Parts: sequence; structure tokens; C-alpha cells
Amino acid sequence: MSVSVSLTDSRPRVGVWLIGARGSVATTVVAGCAAVTAGLRAPVGMVTETAPFAGSGLPALPSLVFGGHDTLDCPLPKRAEALAAGGVLPHGLPTAITAELAAADREIRPGGPLPGDTRGPEELIEAFAEDIRDFTGRHGLARTVVVNVASTEPVASGSGLSDLPPSSLYAAAALRAGCPYVNFTPSTGLHHPALADAVATSGLPYAGRDGKTGQTLLRSVLGPMFAQRALAVRAWSGTNLLGGGDGAALADPAAAAAKNAGKERVLTDTLGATPEGETHIDDVPALGDWKTAWDHITFDGFLGTRMTLQTTWQGCDSALAAPLVLDLARLTARAHEAGLTGPLTELAFYFKDPVGDAPSALGAQYEVLTGFAERLRTHAADHGGDAEGAR
Amino acid sequence: MSVSVSLTDSRPRVGVWLIGARGSVATTVVAGCAAVTAGLRAPVGMVTETAPFAGSGLPALPSLVFGGHDTLDCPLPKRAEALAAGGVLPHGLPTAITAELAAADREIRPGGPLPGDTRGPEELIEAFAEDIRDFTGRHGLARTVVVNVASTEPVASGSGLSDLPPSSLYAAAALRAGCPYVNFTPSTGLHHPALADAVATSGLPYAGRDGKTGQTLLRSVLGPMFAQRALAVRAWSGTNLLGGGDGAALADPAAAAAKNAGKERVLTDTLGATPEGETHIDDVPALGDWKTAWDHITFDGFLGTRMTLQTTWQGCDSALAAPLVLDLARLTARAHEAGLTGPLTELAFYFKDPVGDAPSALGAQYEVLTGFAERLRTHAADHGGDAEGAR
Amino acid sequence: MSVSVSLTDSRPRVGVWLIGARGSVATTVVAGCAAVTAGLRAPVGMVTETAPFAGSGLPALPSLVFGGHDTLDCPLPKRAEALAAGGVLPHGLPTAITAELAAADREIRPGGPLPGDTRGPEELIEAFAEDIRDFTGRHGLARTVVVNVASTEPVASGSGLSDLPPSSLYAAAALRAGCPYVNFTPSTGLHHPALADAVATSGLPYAGRDGKTGQTLLRSVLGPMFAQRALAVRAWSGTNLLGGGDGAALADPAAAAAKNAGKERVLTDTLGATPEGETHIDDVPALGDWKTAWDHITFDGFLGTRMTLQTTWQGCDSALAAPLVLDLARLTARAHEAGLTGPLTELAFYFKDPVGDAPSALGAQYEVLTGFAERLRTHAADHGGDAEGAR
Amino acid sequence: MSVSVSLTDSRPRVGVWLIGARGSVATTVVAGCAAVTAGLRAPVGMVTETAPFAGSGLPALPSLVFGGHDTLDCPLPKRAEALAAGGVLPHGLPTAITAELAAADREIRPGGPLPGDTRGPEELIEAFAEDIRDFTGRHGLARTVVVNVASTEPVASGSGLSDLPPSSLYAAAALRAGCPYVNFTPSTGLHHPALADAVATSGLPYAGRDGKTGQTLLRSVLGPMFAQRALAVRAWSGTNLLGGGDGAALADPAAAAAKNAGKERVLTDTLGATPEGETHIDDVPALGDWKTAWDHITFDGFLGTRMTLQTTWQGCDSALAAPLVLDLARLTARAHEAGLTGPLTELAFYFKDPVGDAPSALGAQYEVLTGFAERLRTHAADHGGDAEGAR
Repeated sequence: MSVSVSLTDSRPRVGVWLIGARGSVATTVVAGCAAVTAGLRAPVGMVTETAPFAGSGLPALPSLVFGGHDTLDCPLPKRAEALAAGGVLPHGLPTAITAELAAADREIRPGGPLPGDTRGPEELIEAFAEDIRDFTGRHGLARTVVVNVASTEPVASGSGLSDLPPSSLYAAAALRAGCPYVNFTPSTGLHHPALADAVATSGLPYAGRDGKTGQTLLRSVLGPMFAQRALAVRAWSGTNLLGGGDGAALADPAAAAAKNAGKERVLTDTLGATPEGETHIDDVPALGDWKTAWDHITFDGFLGTRMTLQTTWQGCDSALAAPLVLDLARLTARAHEAGLTGPLTELAFYFKDPVGDAPSALGAQYEVLTGFAERLRTHAADHGGDAEGAR
Repeated sequence: MSVSVSLTDSRPRVGVWLIGARGSVATTVVAGCAAVTAGLRAPVGMVTETAPFAGSGLPALPSLVFGGHDTLDCPLPKRAEALAAGGVLPHGLPTAITAELAAADREIRPGGPLPGDTRGPEELIEAFAEDIRDFTGRHGLARTVVVNVASTEPVASGSGLSDLPPSSLYAAAALRAGCPYVNFTPSTGLHHPALADAVATSGLPYAGRDGKTGQTLLRSVLGPMFAQRALAVRAWSGTNLLGGGDGAALADPAAAAAKNAGKERVLTDTLGATPEGETHIDDVPALGDWKTAWDHITFDGFLGTRMTLQTTWQGCDSALAAPLVLDLARLTARAHEAGLTGPLTELAFYFKDPVGDAPSALGAQYEVLTGFAERLRTHAADHGGDAEGAR
Repeated sequence: MSVSVSLTDSRPRVGVWLIGARGSVATTVVAGCAAVTAGLRAPVGMVTETAPFAGSGLPALPSLVFGGHDTLDCPLPKRAEALAAGGVLPHGLPTAITAELAAADREIRPGGPLPGDTRGPEELIEAFAEDIRDFTGRHGLARTVVVNVASTEPVASGSGLSDLPPSSLYAAAALRAGCPYVNFTPSTGLHHPALADAVATSGLPYAGRDGKTGQTLLRSVLGPMFAQRALAVRAWSGTNLLGGGDGAALADPAAAAAKNAGKERVLTDTLGATPEGETHIDDVPALGDWKTAWDHITFDGFLGTRMTLQTTWQGCDSALAAPLVLDLARLTARAHEAGLTGPLTELAFYFKDPVGDAPSALGAQYEVLTGFAERLRTHAADHGGDAEGAR
Repeated sequence: MSVSVSLTDSRPRVGVWLIGARGSVATTVVAGCAAVTAGLRAPVGMVTETAPFAGSGLPALPSLVFGGHDTLDCPLPKRAEALAAGGVLPHGLPTAITAELAAADREIRPGGPLPGDTRGPEELIEAFAEDIRDFTGRHGLARTVVVNVASTEPVASGSGLSDLPPSSLYAAAALRAGCPYVNFTPSTGLHHPALADAVATSGLPYAGRDGKTGQTLLRSVLGPMFAQRALAVRAWSGTNLLGGGDGAALADPAAAAAKNAGKERVLTDTLGATPEGETHIDDVPALGDWKTAWDHITFDGFLGTRMTLQTTWQGCDSALAAPLVLDLARLTARAHEAGLTGPLTELAFYFKDPVGDAPSALGAQYEVLTGFAERLRTHAADHGGDAEGAR
């Protein structure tokens, strides 16, 4: 693939503010955007780079500027080297794009609250919002999209302001800074009673929740297949093996519960009933960032004949998530530019637990998504602009 | 499930003439229709028994009358007992519906040509057509649908009348007898140059080709998933293990070639390119009518990260095919009643190699199919009739 | 297979007293012994029916008389019908051997303690022992082997007589009745501190613990393979899906813990270290008595190259266990006849957690077992007898 | 691992002459020996580095000197870089050991016959033998072991000297140069009628044939498991997917036939009968040097209950083969030093089709191998030497 990018792009630039900015997904997002922009790699896995999205006015990849919050302090170039050693990034890539990694690294601010931090929710929200405003201002960005790609939190309890989990503090900060928000994780984010009013009055578009990258992606096409063929699914069991930071985070049963709720929701929604069976998430450090997901499905065919389907998915979660995060940042930025507000139900294609009313089968979600791209294109034509002119 | 069937259904009855009427699929079709009609089993796997097809005027299951051609002479009740011993039919079912099996058995006529038969194509076609006319007349049927469920033939060669393979002789007989035709196999059937004129002038609706029941069904949802997510499939390899008559028939490389063409077509159509990889069909007599299909898919994610998906499908082909055959017989009969002619592209949902222009993703095919049901319903309403009143 | 059995066998008969006598395994043991004795089925899965055991003086299958304890009261013929409906026993078999099932059923005595039972451990032990003595006496049996095939108990705690779990009460009763004892489950049985003295002074042979039938059987050959090839196993993860009574019993985490300890012990013993990874046991009622066990093994090859092996085992636990129970009853009875006492370490081939010092690789265990058969043969020759004369 | 290697090892050095010296396996052998010698990697996968081989007098890794024949001319350092890019060798390793790769590269001589070569068999054999003699002499080696690791040849036909396939020409050259010979491939090598006399009178030890590295390794432990448990295997089907040079070579049906014969032999030998089922080898270039092998085994348990086992092996053939090649070179060199002649049946552990009479179960082969190590140790002690003093 040869990509030619104008160095003096006159189009305004767009910020992407990553919560969990030093994690595997965020690092792959930054590295991948740089690699594709530089023409080093094809944009495999980026749906917004396919034909139906041409002319929809999405911000071009070279126009994206990255920053974010994180509680860790491992520099991005070093993090990228670790990912390359684990086979998540191509060998040699971190060196080739070290400048872009360093630039994003300089825009990462301390997250929180960390142990010992005595600030209350209001102070934290204001501090985070100020970080985002400062980033947007210094770079002269047209807008900044906030995307949560941090580790999954335990399921939250409590409904008051003082009960806001970190993901909700960051989400509140996004609203306060006037930024569209995307929740790529199952964490609470904007879905907290104490934020309901702020969400309703913000006039901002938002998307989520919980990106579907592997096992659930599969389930979102297999579930409809069984339903459309009138085959009776009796049991659907699954085991996920993964290491890396995600494996460790999900070894916490409360965090795993949050994750599994989304996996099972897809089955219930597409099958019309909840089948028997459990889903396990095991931390297997030896696997690093690679995940193996095994599903075992027992179903009845005609006259009660018992049959089974098994699937084994071996993928790298960060590499599956990163292009979707870039897609979502672009689509949400464009939605904001186009004046859309509230839940972006058209982006259900990307999520296990989509906001608003949306179909649950991947194919139907894809049609909704490409219809959305079409509407954005019309809108772009009406307004005489095309953010992708350079591409 | 409780099924209430009027014993004195005033609606006209419909014939289903099965080519390969003593095979596993045909036996399961006859047994299954009787079992569901008698309320012994739920219509699992029958798409036409789900909500979107209510009121579409399809012939009710109790109104179907079965007959057919076969070159073998094993009585249907005995064949059903063998299937029950192999776990394809429930134990006890053949005894419960022995009257219906015997009734269908009496309507099976000798197929051909068998070795030693000196009749030419024209004589055979006429003899077969006369069998179907006689069946339709004796039973006072409103119409008869001819469905090919015989073993897969080797790929045909030659384009003259004298080159017609058996599947095409039966298909020509269907046309001559004025019957709609469904080809559930990859055999040539109506797709023969020597029949092109007869097809074009017949004014009959027809459907086909090659029912997708297992591995290809899966491929028709997994292929679109990879395409919609912009993941680059590099190789798709498959192995099918099966015994029974189908295993033996497909051990013939020429027959397997016909079958595999359909399997690969689905990949090419849904992925937009043909990936590397072969598909094997092995005859494993020990497996009987049970089939195991293993697929191994290698794909690239973001930045070229190499990933894999494996699927193992363990099913019983006859139990997967039979409800689809009943669906197709009902839909095609209804199409004929409604005056539709030519290729029924709306039935692509059922086939590996659908006639006419149709989408290749299962989800899109399902939408087309339910839209078709909606049109039939409107048509039924216009004409004041509803064949499913009794159900 | 043709089996000729003398109707007037002059050899003394041997009792097999099953703890859990109405369970799936026990029912399959009784049904299977009758089916093989009657020549209806070949003794597939019975190691003692293979060449190395000819002439070892084992009691012939027709000489075995069955009885046992159970807390349930479903009659064996009815239990066998349910197993046949689930595909565990061949259709038609329960009817063919109903007399043998009924005979065993008459010899099943109530187990305990059930809720409301006010008897203390000593009373229960004595009552159970008396049941066994009465059985042995009425039938004029040369000896009776007690075999525990009941559902797995939660891990026991406490070391006093009053803390004895049911499995230990039955085991103590076996000792008191002078019977050799086999523990086919991971339950405590004789492995209780309060029974240590009784075991030591009993002069009886005993065997156990926890039959290896599926996943662990596989692990006992794959573990040595990796070790002998000097391949470094990093992680070994497993998931078991099963329904039936066993599935429900093992859904109790404490019972599953007892079961899993044995599965992991085999890995540690054969690999020389405990790899990463967990083993799950899920209750999936839809699967009935059929079990699917998936194992995922990550290992390093030369120069650290990361590789994987996955296995999927689909079997019926009762059908795997029953022939081994018959083997064990015969071998243990013969050991008792030959005057052997204490732990029968030579039977490690059959167990996850064998008593005494034994090799952990299946191949080595097999050599020990066939060496044992050879010693029994020599002993039989010395004493002029051969219990298998009729076979 | 810490490895201390004396720089002035007084022990004589030993040559390893690789047929196919520029292939993946040979490159991994040279690279791996250097990496382990330098302490960069642990000797995972090398059986001769485990405890039972300590003190057996095997030549130390640093004492091995590499050379060989090949018809290609890609330099080893470049070949190693390609393997590192494909994940077969660790990134960075080729650079770290470039001197050792270059040294081996200088000792590779042109193989043959290439198209246009007019030399007859006798001339080729003499030329090859002279290459080996020259190598041995220039380096002052105590002995040189010739190991065939070239691509699999089609099955040979014809029994005369003029019919010798290339593998046999090289094998004949080894004999003529007085070198022990190991055939790690299924190619003919010494197993040619025209070489029978030369083999018999050579007084040299030799080993082979066809290293078992993955699917067959598994079969050699699973086959015995089924046999020892008296389970009746009905069908054993397999599919191998691989790319790289081996994939292309085995896409030739004649070459695949040679390979598959060995795979099936292991089943027949361990099961005592040949089950139903085929084994496929597919060339899938996208997989590179990585191989996926799927096996599907249908077996009967007690009372005819049908069960299945599936295995999926994902490995890198070169990384699996290379440590075994080093093992074999060391063991065969030591056998030559100890004066052993003829077929080394004790090395059956390594082969699909071992020379001489040997057990077929891996566990039993392992016992024979460690017994051999013990005998070599005794022999070493008798002769006062220990080649592994430095290690």
C-alpha cells in the first residue's frame, strides 16, 4: 500500500485522548496510526478505511494527535519495544516511529486517584478536564475525543457522586471539557446515575460500551446463524486464556463479571434466550498479550438430534482493538463535527453492550454502520468539506 | 409444543416428489414431517415455522404428500429403522409413524437409468414425467414440487441431449410435468445447456443449488465477519469426515469436486478474494451419517499480526438438510401458486450456489428471505387465502 | 466375539459391593458385566480381558455377584432405561438383561446417613458391615470386594471418628467385614487419620484413588511425552463440560477441588513441575452423561519457540469407568485370594492419585500392571488353580 | 542457564555434515548449537542435555563443527535472518552468532545432481565423499557424522545403481568416507537395494528413518494409550497444514506418500491394526514454517459407546527437529567412537520408521534410549574418558 499524505494539511487536527494511555491497546493505537500514516503497514482491521467510508468526512489519520491519562509511568517507546518482543507489534516498528511515540508520551498526564491522593471526585474531575482542555488548546485542535481503553474495573456499586469509580471520573471530565466520549471497556464510564443529568444536558455524542474484538465478535455472527436457521441452542460454554495486563486484571472475579456480562448479553440478544453454560477468563501469564478463546456450543437440530460446534480463536487483543479504537475516534469526532448528540447507536457494530436501541446481529449492525457513513457523506457534501482529502 | 391440525383440511394438498427418495435425507424428510404433524416433535430447524412466515400462505405440513424416484429398493420403514439405530432419527419414531412411511414408500417409482437400461434420454424423461403426473393426478394434488436430494453426481461434461446426467433427466421430467423444481445438491439438474430453452419457456419457478447445511453455513457467516471487520484472510483450509452413503459418494474425486466448488464459492463471494487452502472430503465409514468438519482460518489483523480461527462442526447432515427441504418445498409450492416464475433468488439463504443474483452473506440472505415471506403474505391477503389456517 | 460360559462353574463366586450402587457407573458395571457374559457385546475397554491377563487366575465375569449401598431408590432397570435413552447404554440392552439388573437391585441396601438419621459413626459402620456380611453369606461368596463409585464428596476436614465423611464410613465397614476395598473416586475413603490403625492392622489389600478415565488419562501420556522430549511446558489449562449427576455434584466448588487436585497432580508428577493454568469443571445439564474436556497446553521448543497443543476429548464417563471398575474388582479379589495385603501400588495404571509409590507415566504404569498379572499367573500355577478356566 | 565452556577443550572435535545444509532445519541446527554454546538459550528440546545422558561421553556441543551439501546457494546468515523474520529463530539471534553461521556457510559444498550435470552415480558419490574427507581432514576431526535433513524425495523406484535417488548418493558417499549416517527424512538414503552390500560391510553405525517431531510424536503416545486401555480405535484421520519449503515439497503427492507411510505405520504398530481414515498434507504458504496438525480419532468404549478425541498441534517443525538432530549427531558419533556398528535400534525414540526391531510406543522407546545412555556411560567409564567434562 502506498499512502501519500500532505505535510501541510490545511484541515484542522483532531485530538484523541486515551484513558489508559500507556496500556497495550493505547500503545498499539499510537504506533499503528503512525505506521499506517507513514505507509509502513496497510490499514488492515480499520473498517473506516474501506470503501463505504470514503467521502464521509472522517478526520484523516495524519490529523490525529494523541494524549491521555495513565497511572503508570512506563514511557511509550519502551512499552512499544515490549510489545514488539511479544509479537504484538512488528519487530523494528518501534524504532521506525519512535518520534511519534515520544510525542504522544509527552502528552500523557498522571491519572488517578492513586493511593494517598486526598482529592475528592470534584477536584479530580476538574483536574482531568483541565488536562484535556490544555491539550486541545496547545495543539489548536478542532476537537478532542476521549476514549477509555483502561483495564476493566470491578462492577461499581453506589449511586452518589462520592461513589464514582475512576472510569466515571474520567468520563465526567470529558463532558466538562466538552469532548465526545467513547467507552471501549465494560467499566461504568458515563453509565453512572450520578452522571445522568450531565450526560443529558451535555449536547455531546458518545459511544460504547465494551468493544467486541474476538470471542464476542464470533458470537455476534454465530448466535444469529443459529436463530435464523431455527436451531435450538441448548448450551454455550466458553473459556478465555490470556496473559498480559488484561489477564491479571480479569483474574479479579469482579472485573471478570463485568466482562462476562457483555459476552452473555450478546448470546441472549441474538438467540432470544439465555442458554446453559458458563464463560471463564483465566490469567495465563505465559500467553502474554495473546488470547485463546474456546467456545463449545450444543444445539438441537431437526427431531432433537444433538449436535455441537466448537470454535478456537487465537488472537492478539491489542491488535484487534486498536484499529477499532481509531475507527471510533474518527467516527465520533465526525459525529461531533456534524452536530450529532447523545448515544451513537449506529456504532453498535463495535460493542458488546451498545448504547441505545440497536440490532444485535453483526450483519445488521454493519448495515446500520454503513448507512451512518452514507449520511455523514451526504452531510459532508452539503457542507462542502471532506476531511479525507489527503487520503 | 402443541400442534393442532384439522383433520378435514379443506385446503388442497401439495405433492413433494423426492429424487433419491430412499436416501437418508428423503427418509428424514418424510419421517420428520409426520413426526411434527403428529405433535411428537417440535419443528426445530424449520425456518418456515418461525414468526416471519406466519400468514405467508405456505402449504401446511399435514397437506404435504410424498413420493419420488430412487434406484434402490430398501423400504422406507426399514431405512428409517437403520437411521434410528445410527442416532439420526429418535429411537421409537419409525414405529410411531410407520403408516406415513409406508404410504410414501408406495409412491416411490424406480429411477434410472440402471445398467442394462436401453432407453434413451427422451424415453427416460417421459417415463419420469408420467410417474409424477400420475402421482399428482391420483392424489388430486394442487401441484407437485420436485426436489433433488440424491447423492452428488460427478461433474458433468458434454452439452448435448445425450450427455444429460441423471439429475438433468429428472429435472427435465419436472419441467415436462409442469412442476416447480428445487435442486438441493450440487449436481447439474437444470443447469445443463441442453435444458436452457426448456427452462426459459417453462413458466415455472425453480430454486437451487446445493443446500448449505454445515461447514458452508458457517462459512457464510464467518466470511462476512472477516470482510466487515476488514481483517485479511490469508488461508482457509477444511477437512470433512463423514461416512454413510454420502461419504462413499464423495470419496469419488469428481463428486467431491462438485461439492467443494460450492464451499469455495462462498468464501470467494464473501471475502472478495479466494484465500489459500484446500478442502478435503474423506469417507470414514465408522462415522455413519455423522459429519465432522474442521476449518482452519489464518488471518492478519492490524499491523500484520497473524491470528487463527478454528471451527469444528459435528452434525448429522440428514437432520440438518431435512427441515430445509421441507422449507423449500413449501416456499416453492407457494411461489408457484402465486404465479412466480424463473429463478427464486430470494431463497439464496438455503444454498451454496444460489440461482440468480443474491447476496452471499447469510444475514443479508435472511433479510431477503423474510422480505419474500412478507410479499407472499401480502399476496395471500390480496387473494383472501391463508394456507396455514389450520396451524 | 463369541464367549462361551460354563453354566455350572465350579469355581467359587465373588461379590462386588458398590458404594453408589444406583449411579450411572454402577448401573453400567452391572449391565456391562451381564452383556459381556451373555455374549451380547465384546469386552471393549476391559484391560483384564486382554492377552497379558490370561491365566492370571482372575475371577470370571459370570462368577461376579453384585450388590451395594445407595441413598437413592430408583430401581436399576429403570436407571438403565434412562441411560439407554441418553446413549450411554445401547438401546435394547436394558430389556435383554433385565433379570440381572433386577437381581442386583434386590441386593442394594440403604446407604447413609440421610437427614434425620440419628445413628453415630460406629452404628453406621456396623450396619453397613452387617449388610456386606449378610450379602456374602447368603450367596456363599468366596469374598466380596467393596468399590466406591459414589459421587465425589467435598474435601473432608477434621481428623476424629466423628468427622468421618460417608465415604470413610463405608470404607471402615469394608474393613470390618474383612473385604478388600477400591476407591474409584477422589473422596476420602480409607485416607482418613481415624482409620489409619484399622487399615494397618486389617491384613487386607486395597486400591485407589480416583479413577483416570478421560482428561487425566490423556494427561498421563502427554505429560511424559513433553518431559521425555525435554520440551518446556509453560501452561496447561483445561475445561470440563458435563451434565448428569456428576456434573451437578462437581458444580460444588469443594467437590470440584477434590477432583481437580488429582488432575493437577498428574501434571506435576509427570512434568516435574506445576505449570501455569487452571482446570474448570462446569455443570452443563444439556450434555447429560457425556463429557467434553478441552485442554490447552503452551510449551517452549528449541530456542524458546512458543508452541501449543490442544486436545478435545468427547466421551461418556460411565462407559469409560465401568470396564475399569470390573478390572479393579477382579484384580483386587485375586490379590486377596493370593494373600496380598496393603496398598496395591501395581494398580496405579487406573488412578489419578495412586496409593503407594508408583510411576506416573501411563506406559510405565502399564508395564507394572502386566508384571503384576505375570506374578499372579505364576502364583496361580503354583496353586494349581485358574479362575478363568471357563473363559 | 549458565554454561561454562572451556576455550581450550582438549577433546577431539566432531564433524556434523548436513545434507540440505541451507534448509530451515540445518540452519536452526547450526544457529541453535551456537546459541546454546554461547549460553544465550537453554537447551530446551535436547534430550541429550537431560540427566540420564550425563557422563555418557557424548561430544560436547562446542566440539561440533558443521558443514554439508546443498543445491541452493542462499548464505546461512541470510537464511537465518529469514527464519527470524518468520518467528522460527529469536529476533536478534542471527546477529549474535553471525560468525558461527558464516563459518558453517564456508563449509557447504554444492550438492547434486543439478539439471545439466552429466556425472554418473559413481562420480557423484566419489565427489561427495571427497568433500566430506576434505572437511574432516582440514579440521582434524575425530570423526564426521552425516545427517540427511534435506526435503523429502518422492518414493524411489528401480533397484540398480543408476536408479539411486540423491539421498542414496549422499548416503553412499557417507559410507565411502567412513562416516556414520543418520537419515532424519523419509527419503531412501541407505535403504536402497543397490547399497545393501556396502551397508553390510561398512562396519559403520547408522540411524533413521524419518524424525518424528509433531503429529507422529503425538500418535506414538496416543496409540499405545488406546491399546493399553483396550479401547477400539475405529478411525484416525489427520490433516497437516504447513508452508515453507517443506509445504511445497510435500505438495508433491509422491513425496507426501513417503511421509504419510511413516505416520500410518506408527498407528498400525501401536494399535495392532490399521484404522480407517486418511492423512492429508496441504501446502499453505501463508503459514510459513509453522505447522498445524489436526487429528480426529473415533473410538469405541465399553458396550460400543462411540467417543472421539481431537488434537490440534501448532508447532514449528524446524524448532522441533533441530534439537533432535543435535541429539542424533552426538549419539551416533559416540556410538562410532564406542565401536558400535550396524543399525542403532536404540534410537527408535527419534523416528517414525526406525531401523531394526524396536518398540513402537514412545515410553518404551525412551526406556531403551536411556538404557543405551547407561551403557555408553559404563563404556566411557571403562575407557577413562568423558567427552562432556566441559559441560
